[in-house]
Amino acid sequence: MLEQLKKEVYEANMELPKRGLITYTWGNVSGIDRESGLFVIKPSGVDYDKLSPEDMVVMDLDGNRVEGDLNPSSDTPTHIELYKAFKDLGGIVHTHSPWATSWAQAGRSIPCYGTTHADYFYGEIPCARSLTKEEIEEAYEKNTGLVIIEIFKDKNPVYVPGVLCTNHGPFTWGADAAEAVHNAVVLEEVAKMAYRCEHLNPEAKPAPQYLQDKHFFRKHGANAYYGQGK
Amino acid sequence: MLEQLKKEVYEANMELPKRGLITYTWGNVSGIDRESGLFVIKPSGVDYDKLSPEDMVVMDLDGNRVEGDLNPSSDTPTHIELYKAFKDLGGIVHTHSPWATSWAQAGRSIPCYGTTHADYFYGEIPCARSLTKEEIEEAYEKNTGLVIIEIFKDKNPVYVPGVLCTNHGPFTWGADAAEAVHNAVVLEEVAKMAYRCEHLNPEAKPAPQYLQDKHFFRKHGANAYYGQGK
Amino acid sequence: MLEQLKKEVYEANMELPKRGLITYTWGNVSGIDRESGLFVIKPSGVDYDKLSPEDMVVMDLDGNRVEGDLNPSSDTPTHIELYKAFKDLGGIVHTHSPWATSWAQAGRSIPCYGTTHADYFYGEIPCARSLTKEEIEEAYEKNTGLVIIEIFKDKNPVYVPGVLCTNHGPFTWGADAAEAVHNAVVLEEVAKMAYRCEHLNPEAKPAPQYLQDKHFFRKHGANAYYGQGK
Amino acid sequence: MLEQLKKEVYEANMELPKRGLITYTWGNVSGIDRESGLFVIKPSGVDYDKLSPEDMVVMDLDGNRVEGDLNPSSDTPTHIELYKAFKDLGGIVHTHSPWATSWAQAGRSIPCYGTTHADYFYGEIPCARSLTKEEIEEAYEKNTGLVIIEIFKDKNPVYVPGVLCTNHGPFTWGADAAEAVHNAVVLEEVAKMAYRCEHLNPEAKPAPQYLQDKHFFRKHGANAYYGQGK
Repeated sequence: MLEQLKKEVYEANMELPKRGLITYTWGNVSGIDRESGLFVIKPSGVDYDKLSPEDMVVMDLDGNRVEGDLNPSSDTPTHIELYKAFKDLGGIVHTHSPWATSWAQAGRSIPCYGTTHADYFYGEIPCARSLTKEEIEEAYEKNTGLVIIEIFKDKNPVYVPGVLCTNHGPFTWGADAAEAVHNAVVLEEVAKMAYRCEHLNPEAKPAPQYLQDKHFFRKHGANAYYGQGK
Repeated sequence: MLEQLKKEVYEANMELPKRGLITYTWGNVSGIDRESGLFVIKPSGVDYDKLSPEDMVVMDLDGNRVEGDLNPSSDTPTHIELYKAFKDLGGIVHTHSPWATSWAQAGRSIPCYGTTHADYFYGEIPCARSLTKEEIEEAYEKNTGLVIIEIFKDKNPVYVPGVLCTNHGPFTWGADAAEAVHNAVVLEEVAKMAYRCEHLNPEAKPAPQYLQDKHFFRKHGANAYYGQGK
Repeated sequence: MLEQLKKEVYEANMELPKRGLITYTWGNVSGIDRESGLFVIKPSGVDYDKLSPEDMVVMDLDGNRVEGDLNPSSDTPTHIELYKAFKDLGGIVHTHSPWATSWAQAGRSIPCYGTTHADYFYGEIPCARSLTKEEIEEAYEKNTGLVIIEIFKDKNPVYVPGVLCTNHGPFTWGADAAEAVHNAVVLEEVAKMAYRCEHLNPEAKPAPQYLQDKHFFRKHGANAYYGQGK
Repeated sequence: MLEQLKKEVYEANMELPKRGLITYTWGNVSGIDRESGLFVIKPSGVDYDKLSPEDMVVMDLDGNRVEGDLNPSSDTPTHIELYKAFKDLGGIVHTHSPWATSWAQAGRSIPCYGTTHADYFYGEIPCARSLTKEEIEEAYEKNTGLVIIEIFKDKNPVYVPGVLCTNHGPFTWGADAAEAVHNAVVLEEVAKMAYRCEHLNPEAKPAPQYLQDKHFFRKHGANAYYGQGK
């Protein structure tokens, strides 16, 4: 069942330790098959060097396990809310990657200080608000998804493929699981350079809007000219 | 004698260089067999790439060498005090891992800024007070253990599996030697992210208590639901 | 056609990931054959682990593709302007290497704080001004070249083999593609140490001019005595 | 001639890239045979991956090349002054290792903030003064040695096996070439942790003298008890 997707999600998960984004089991990747409405996600707390494609868990968007012997990632309800609200998402990643998590712990959005950021994220990478005591106790992982959706009320998640959760860490996404991981790597690089930029110049301002426009749209949309085309 | 434990302690020691926690011989791991009251510890000052399971030294809790040709780690008296005071400990690690040691040198406890910390350490990671001149000259390594025990007077060492020693470095522990090393790796990551968090936001506050509770207890205790159960 | 140059440019490109200067496809190297006026450059957006010498694109200085099936790097017009203005350049590199890019995002030139810098760059490494909205919309990549040339009005590009572009990242160059990459590695190291130097001493001053002279000219020019001679 | 020493010096040189202390050729190691008064040093500007034991250059303390086809390191006159003034030295290392060089560029001595430092360096690691214009123009490398000797007027180079040169970088030494490299690695770790310590606590004070004494003398001198004895 969904063998190709399980393989893709497995491989995307294995990119996380390879790219230095995670320590131990601190991350998870999922990918969705929009036709059937089913998604595939990493099992909870399983070591990456023991993981195989068969361990991937198949879930539906109501939170039922459709296939697999293992418990899905404890963050599964967050993935569900994001897939339901953001219809263009094909893959989602959560990590505790250290630079992005440092910004999340600081409760700060990452300003767009340069073209590396603008090549992938259009405008700042937002930091979602803290959950209340009630939201945490009632349904923590689901409500984590809802506060992310809340801060994207006026944002296009395809143009801003990631978010920070206060005191927690980043979620990123993309057209599929591999692109979601790609954006997690970019976020980590961007978070690192923004930190250093501010220390070199505490008065640093975001890049001019027209420079951000230039870089984002030379890689995205109808007039893109970066790369080899489709 | 205690062949299985010697193997476990050997392997836990070998994790230290593999995980980037130590330079040269700046660390040691021990593991205890509570039934016999004997523990196994790394020999002092031996290169990691020359170490073998047979080099591990067997000690009793009075500080007598029970088996082995080599001198035990010079920090052995610290391990003894911790094993005697904290009955749930099965393994102990000491390193000079650079991020944790920087906090120790600064004489500061690490505030709980996020869920990575709260997943493993319940509340701040305390920094034990400096030893006095007398304590150092009389019995330095033993008294290092005693000041750690002093700061845990009102703390549960199972909930807070590590400590910083002022101007020195960290000790961590766990149910066995492998878990103690796992906690040393976590401490290093947490120390790094807390440093960066404070630089991104000098007004950063610890994560709300109910978020810390949520994360710690979804992984520990009777109501844990992270991972695949036992 | 230009098989040797294609091989050299390919190998210089492959140094970028090996030296940790790039993430994904965030960089490009070119090399020029001054006799024919043709240069060889990396294709746009192609993964480094799929690249081969045959993928290199041959261009003329009017921006025409002379050989190759792939689109050249989107930064090709910048390379063209630099080759046209700076006649001694044999190779050019662009990266988003994280330390240099952090300075570029901060909009700051890198002061010469020590001999590592002075061994390769004579005086500060300048930060070129931001492009205007009009310059970006009219011909972004070409005008990136022109603002670099503008800031070198009173500088010798052989003595200062690199530059930062505000909110963007570094370009470096050299007698050939390999030397251009060498200078990109040096720039990254120098950017890192200058950042840390300023944090250790906010009042730090550039190295005395006579120390800079000593180091630069013991490695460059007629009286050089570093190395094994020619 | 001095085949064993050439092998040792070669191997000590090869430790520099392996330990991450150098980029390209930015370092050199020498070792001396006190009986003959001859020392062996790396050739100038030769790539580490092309180096062999036979490339090592044999010099006398008057600066004459006694054996070898290649030019010795351009820093040879500094090594000579140190060997002549400090009779206990068996090996010397110079690098541009990034953390130590950042302190050197900042013109600051490294305070002893903890036991990692005190295990190897007794008291602060001093920063030698800048050379004057005259000293640089007259005999730069020789005078670099003399300003190091000047700052050790009241220090024991065996107790403090290293120094920083303002705007330049570190020199370390030891009983032989291998120990000199060992101390270069320690210096880099200590420099990194001291930087971070100061950022975590701008009011941080050096470790108490009695803690420094305890750690230094449990590893050095007649009453040492760290390790396996001799």
